[in-house]
Amino acid sequence: MLRMAEKIRDRLETSHNVKSNTIAENTEKSDVKITVIDYVESGYEEYQVDVENIEDIAKYKATPSITWINFEGALSVETIRALGEMFAIHKLTLEDVFSREQRPKKDIFEEEGYIYIVIHNLGFDENSKEVKKEQISIITSYNIVITFCEFETKIFDSVIGRIKKDGKIRKYASDYLTYALIDVIVDNYFDIIEKMDDHIFEIEEAAFKSTDVKVVEDIKNSKTQLTKINLSVKPLIEVFSSISKTDSKLIRKSTKNYYRDIYDHVVRIEDMIETERENLSDIFSVYESNINLKQNEIMKILTIISTIFIPLTFIAGVYGMNFVNMPELEWKYGYYFSLALMGIICVIIIYKIRKMKWI
Amino acid sequence: MLRMAEKIRDRLETSHNVKSNTIAENTEKSDVKITVIDYVESGYEEYQVDVENIEDIAKYKATPSITWINFEGALSVETIRALGEMFAIHKLTLEDVFSREQRPKKDIFEEEGYIYIVIHNLGFDENSKEVKKEQISIITSYNIVITFCEFETKIFDSVIGRIKKDGKIRKYASDYLTYALIDVIVDNYFDIIEKMDDHIFEIEEAAFKSTDVKVVEDIKNSKTQLTKINLSVKPLIEVFSSISKTDSKLIRKSTKNYYRDIYDHVVRIEDMIETERENLSDIFSVYESNINLKQNEIMKILTIISTIFIPLTFIAGVYGMNFVNMPELEWKYGYYFSLALMGIICVIIIYKIRKMKWI
Amino acid sequence: MLRMAEKIRDRLETSHNVKSNTIAENTEKSDVKITVIDYVESGYEEYQVDVENIEDIAKYKATPSITWINFEGALSVETIRALGEMFAIHKLTLEDVFSREQRPKKDIFEEEGYIYIVIHNLGFDENSKEVKKEQISIITSYNIVITFCEFETKIFDSVIGRIKKDGKIRKYASDYLTYALIDVIVDNYFDIIEKMDDHIFEIEEAAFKSTDVKVVEDIKNSKTQLTKINLSVKPLIEVFSSISKTDSKLIRKSTKNYYRDIYDHVVRIEDMIETERENLSDIFSVYESNINLKQNEIMKILTIISTIFIPLTFIAGVYGMNFVNMPELEWKYGYYFSLALMGIICVIIIYKIRKMKWI
Amino acid sequence: MLRMAEKIRDRLETSHNVKSNTIAENTEKSDVKITVIDYVESGYEEYQVDVENIEDIAKYKATPSITWINFEGALSVETIRALGEMFAIHKLTLEDVFSREQRPKKDIFEEEGYIYIVIHNLGFDENSKEVKKEQISIITSYNIVITFCEFETKIFDSVIGRIKKDGKIRKYASDYLTYALIDVIVDNYFDIIEKMDDHIFEIEEAAFKSTDVKVVEDIKNSKTQLTKINLSVKPLIEVFSSISKTDSKLIRKSTKNYYRDIYDHVVRIEDMIETERENLSDIFSVYESNINLKQNEIMKILTIISTIFIPLTFIAGVYGMNFVNMPELEWKYGYYFSLALMGIICVIIIYKIRKMKWI
Amino acid sequence: MLRMAEKIRDRLETSHNVKSNTIAENTEKSDVKITVIDYVESGYEEYQVDVENIEDIAKYKATPSITWINFEGALSVETIRALGEMFAIHKLTLEDVFSREQRPKKDIFEEEGYIYIVIHNLGFDENSKEVKKEQISIITSYNIVITFCEFETKIFDSVIGRIKKDGKIRKYASDYLTYALIDVIVDNYFDIIEKMDDHIFEIEEAAFKSTDVKVVEDIKNSKTQLTKINLSVKPLIEVFSSISKTDSKLIRKSTKNYYRDIYDHVVRIEDMIETERENLSDIFSVYESNINLKQNEIMKILTIISTIFIPLTFIAGVYGMNFVNMPELEWKYGYYFSLALMGIICVIIIYKIRKMKWI
Repeated sequence: MLRMAEKIRDRLETSHNVKSNTIAENTEKSDVKITVIDYVESGYEEYQVDVENIEDIAKYKATPSITWINFEGALSVETIRALGEMFAIHKLTLEDVFSREQRPKKDIFEEEGYIYIVIHNLGFDENSKEVKKEQISIITSYNIVITFCEFETKIFDSVIGRIKKDGKIRKYASDYLTYALIDVIVDNYFDIIEKMDDHIFEIEEAAFKSTDVKVVEDIKNSKTQLTKINLSVKPLIEVFSSISKTDSKLIRKSTKNYYRDIYDHVVRIEDMIETERENLSDIFSVYESNINLKQNEIMKILTIISTIFIPLTFIAGVYGMNFVNMPELEWKYGYYFSLALMGIICVIIIYKIRKMKWI
Repeated sequence: MLRMAEKIRDRLETSHNVKSNTIAENTEKSDVKITVIDYVESGYEEYQVDVENIEDIAKYKATPSITWINFEGALSVETIRALGEMFAIHKLTLEDVFSREQRPKKDIFEEEGYIYIVIHNLGFDENSKEVKKEQISIITSYNIVITFCEFETKIFDSVIGRIKKDGKIRKYASDYLTYALIDVIVDNYFDIIEKMDDHIFEIEEAAFKSTDVKVVEDIKNSKTQLTKINLSVKPLIEVFSSISKTDSKLIRKSTKNYYRDIYDHVVRIEDMIETERENLSDIFSVYESNINLKQNEIMKILTIISTIFIPLTFIAGVYGMNFVNMPELEWKYGYYFSLALMGIICVIIIYKIRKMKWI
Repeated sequence: MLRMAEKIRDRLETSHNVKSNTIAENTEKSDVKITVIDYVESGYEEYQVDVENIEDIAKYKATPSITWINFEGALSVETIRALGEMFAIHKLTLEDVFSREQRPKKDIFEEEGYIYIVIHNLGFDENSKEVKKEQISIITSYNIVITFCEFETKIFDSVIGRIKKDGKIRKYASDYLTYALIDVIVDNYFDIIEKMDDHIFEIEEAAFKSTDVKVVEDIKNSKTQLTKINLSVKPLIEVFSSISKTDSKLIRKSTKNYYRDIYDHVVRIEDMIETERENLSDIFSVYESNINLKQNEIMKILTIISTIFIPLTFIAGVYGMNFVNMPELEWKYGYYFSLALMGIICVIIIYKIRKMKWI
Repeated sequence: MLRMAEKIRDRLETSHNVKSNTIAENTEKSDVKITVIDYVESGYEEYQVDVENIEDIAKYKATPSITWINFEGALSVETIRALGEMFAIHKLTLEDVFSREQRPKKDIFEEEGYIYIVIHNLGFDENSKEVKKEQISIITSYNIVITFCEFETKIFDSVIGRIKKDGKIRKYASDYLTYALIDVIVDNYFDIIEKMDDHIFEIEEAAFKSTDVKVVEDIKNSKTQLTKINLSVKPLIEVFSSISKTDSKLIRKSTKNYYRDIYDHVVRIEDMIETERENLSDIFSVYESNINLKQNEIMKILTIISTIFIPLTFIAGVYGMNFVNMPELEWKYGYYFSLALMGIICVIIIYKIRKMKWI
Repeated sequence: MLRMAEKIRDRLETSHNVKSNTIAENTEKSDVKITVIDYVESGYEEYQVDVENIEDIAKYKATPSITWINFEGALSVETIRALGEMFAIHKLTLEDVFSREQRPKKDIFEEEGYIYIVIHNLGFDENSKEVKKEQISIITSYNIVITFCEFETKIFDSVIGRIKKDGKIRKYASDYLTYALIDVIVDNYFDIIEKMDDHIFEIEEAAFKSTDVKVVEDIKNSKTQLTKINLSVKPLIEVFSSISKTDSKLIRKSTKNYYRDIYDHVVRIEDMIETERENLSDIFSVYESNINLKQNEIMKILTIISTIFIPLTFIAGVYGMNFVNMPELEWKYGYYFSLALMGIICVIIIYKIRKMKWI
């Protein structure tokens, strides 16, 4: 997977000539869903395009309307190359779209006339308590927005809804659409972290009560998940800070406020992640103290039992000796005397222990 | 709550048409208190405006006097939209005012002609030892200051007092009023931290004495509270640093010194928070050492008891054996000899223990 | 104390009218010592001014000589307001001089024509091992230096001495005098840290030897003191870095080298503080290891005693059983055999323990 | 090794005169492999040059074609000096090529007309789990790329393959070739970290199960390896950030995008390293908790055994006393009574222990 | 020592008049060694100057040759003052040369026409494992380099050697000589760290094997030494970064590459120091785990012995009871039965322990 960049490049460069693996690619294609939404302020049209007729997309390119092309699923090298030629997309962008292991980033291709944004759509699996990550690539040109999602996703449904309704969104240009798409993705991060927070609260409760090793496992897993989220969120601070200040004509001046709003959200999410991390560290400290306290508890019980019975057993041992001449043994109430002695010692020890507030 | 941004936007955009949920909104409105204070150097007027007659506010807009409109309580979407139109406030600002989950920040809307500041008013609950947070939004235009408080609050009472008295405050422009409002909020942070400090001092005393798990709970809770305060205070450093250096005409040059003064306070508060955090870490270390010392104490007692009595019990065991031929048993003073032997061993062991400074 | 800023402002603003608390203020005044030193290259004059004749100071204002006015003790609001008017000092500076809870900082009031520097004079109480802090405010104008010390202090004695002697100091302007004053304060920090270092060295020695909880207390206290010093020193880095690079005409170009020299010192002090902090952390680690090692030691003794005597006691127990048919009991040398058996077992166990290097 | 810089300089400077150690140098030479690849868009040529005929290389210098000269193995001072003269390379670059202990860096020698890049080629030894490092020096001039590898390496094979195939690479200039070479090296880092990740996953599994000291050794070793990788990767962030923004004519504008792509990769690798480090810290915490839990387990067993048997043994001891007058001993069912008593006590203790959830 | 800055100033300023302590100063002088090396490309001259004839140095000042004056040993105030006048050195530089407690730094005195660099020459005492520090001050003017070493030192011998040989060094100007001097000092840091590294490796081996408190002492001492080195090295990053970018005419453009080379070295040394520090932290963790593991080991032995013998001793106790009616006692093979019972129990317990992998 990791050396994919290398492989992609080879395939992108060689696919002119070698077309042998067409079948495999066709299989790939069948999973891809392509939605084209074309709108002006007064109305919109929606099409489903089949991946085999990818060249059909070209016709939306020249129109003055805003065109949003959404790809869901893994595209073949063929298709990506075709798109690259159709929309004059830089080779490096094509590689990044294909590789699906990118760090969130923005690349402004001023000459080619588009902004390329990589962002991660996150999900939270309630059972495994694990964060799932999907790379979404967004190419924003003057009238066209192209999005590539790794899998079929419902994340953009609310944006589609707002376009279809007589919403304000249709009044704005393509950079606002891109903002709207990113906004739903980033808004979703709050949900993920809220779910993480619930889970971490459960762990905290467990850490105060139990010394089960499962607590450690849960803490460790939650830390890993937070790191995962952080790897997706942290680079966005830089991305949106610089987009909201960019001089590029691709982002209209009036739209920059919206990107600054996303920036504000991303910074707040970072704060939350940082808070949860500290929280987990503190929970681990609680857990460790708890183990130590439990050990003190165990030690106390052992010490109490030993401290009480070891002296008593010693006395019993003394009067169990077989010396011929042991006056106490002959006493009439020697036995009762010995029991009383034991009782007194026992009381003294318990008194001392109580004074030390052990029981 | 977190996906609210999304919902607000929908409502703000759609409320033109859909007016079905008016009743619920009316219920909301009944809690809102609106105070308008209008002043020039020579005098002032104060009004209470009912939320249903929100349009009455418009008439204070055009006057050359300084107008401060203070909203206390949760505003309905309706009202916010109306205000937005009345004062030409940007959609994003309206969303932020409504959402009440903002990070402290400043947005300068140069074109729209206002500065928008989000700041948190903090409170400290002495019982639960928890910090309460309330978002306060401040919109400062050339002659108008609009403040939105989540709840009814007394924090601005001293400012109102100073306006009513023949104070200097009436000589200054709206940016100075904003400074005065922020100043009382920030001054209040010192109080909060002082109360936290008292509480942390109690925890410290407990940590030196007790190994109760409550100490850990208290430390953890205090850390959480400090993090909460920090999330409200830290962003302010950036906010006031940049306001005190801004080129915007919305802040007069002579007022910048005052904002720099707030900046100084905020930095000092950050120092205090950092100091308290370190303090809590150190207290936790003390607590952990204390647990370990206690364990050593317990172990010592167990070891002393065992070290003294186990050898003695062994000797008693030896003379309790039933061999036919055991000369000592026949000795006249065998019993006393054995007791003396035990006594000597006991003395030696105690001497050794004393030499190790255990008792 | 913390809300003082608020109160000061009120008093400064209202003292025009309300003069009821004059007596209390007079009491305050009686503690204040005011020294005026007026010098040119060829000579100097020194006066003690009574706080009630504060207006006498005004006459030194207009002279071309360098005038240094040193206030020691807590000034009344009255006096501060009078000084503010006399020397055209900004309201915020007056508040800061009065409040005595400032973070070290510099404010350049270009228009008003002065630099305002807040710095802390530190002391070290050898008994309580605590750092004492005193705020010193320095206002440097073209020919005038005004210093405000919270208490009577000897820190400036060496500067006064150098002025009185035919030293070079009289050749320089007011910015050099300010440098000289700050230099003695900063030099004194080295002394404080050296004393701290001696104390920390004692703690280190204790940490290697003892597990007494006093070590933890000392470590914690020393950390707190270092944090205190740090809060006074760290802001100075920024202060002197920016003064030594300032474009303000208030600092002559030739004097900037001297401020850079102070900057170098402050950075070195910061290094020292950082080193001492790390040192304390390491000492705490040593202490913790020491507790654990001690516990191992205790555990070893318990285990050695138990491992030796428990098997022996078992053998004695066996031969203490009352079975009718136990051949060994009848053996002539059965007793000696059993003692030998115990001896052999004892030797084997001790040999094993020695092999594990426990004793 | 470390003082080599010094020695190299001496040798480089003195080798004019002193030629005594020629034999040793010849031995060195025999290991060096020199490959020259000379290409234009329409074709390429490849030569192997013997180190003794090093001056043959000069003839490729003047051609308009792109010339890549790849040295594998340790060069003698002689050869390096000869190359230095042939290609006008700065003395400091020659030293760095020779010393093989450089930190990754780039030096732009604008006047001399080349960029010098030091980068480390990393390998991972699956047996020792250790990272191997090899310094690669790349000198990029307008038509010439010279690479120096410490050892024979296969890392560049894929680039050679792409040049030989009718790939696009031959269309670009020397700065693109350099990019391609660096790209394969950086891509390889992903492999190394993936292997590290597998190994760390094994350690994690071990840490949850075992308290063997080998876990600590493995964690420590892995940390060391990550530090090693980090030392090679971290400086690259600065290197490629600045190359992708450089104004130097040595890097064409269109190629900068490619260097920014490497920059993106390097930043992602840094993220991964950081993640693995945190992971190792967490694993160590798990391991430590595990040790503590195991100790609690051991303590519990000891305490359970002691708590059950010590009281029972005491009762047996009581009825083993030899008092003449002990009524129970005479009872017909005294023995059974005592056994029952022991049984009841035993049941109570086990019941209590169970209630504490120990077993 | 620390207040020395103050004292020096006093002496420097007052020494015009007060000359009473001449004898003490003469004593000081006798230790000082002054070497003057005067060279042009074609040759060199070397002189030893007696400190009493310090004015002799003046004659080398005006020559066009490069003059290097090296002072070894502690100079008297007299001498320093004389030098200051002879070479027009700023008072602050003289103070810094004298005080010997400077942080490494560079001061560019553009007007006075020299660069002043403070750097530390480090040594490593193999016995005490301690780092020794010596301040070296270097003043570089256009034709003159003056160096002040605290003690006699061999560190510059190799540079002297290169000047005496027909090396390239004589071709360059004074800024290159300064580079050469600094280079040998910085190169020496690598040696120091290599020696530290060997020592740390020994500590690491000890930490895996032993729980001796000496390991902690060694770790702590090594940390202190690394901190010491760091205090000398870290400021150099800033120093050489800024020298290699300076606009000052004192450093020729062609020489800047050399200073950048030193910068590279210093950064690498910082990396090494950081790596060693992390290493020591990890070693301490290993050591702590080791203590805990040892404790587990001790606890296991105690628990094994107790778990085996306590139940057996109980059985022996039961059959040692003196009840009249105890059938087993009368059995012919009762004794053997009891031994067998004990044997079986013993086997079961050992089997259980083995299953838990304790032995």
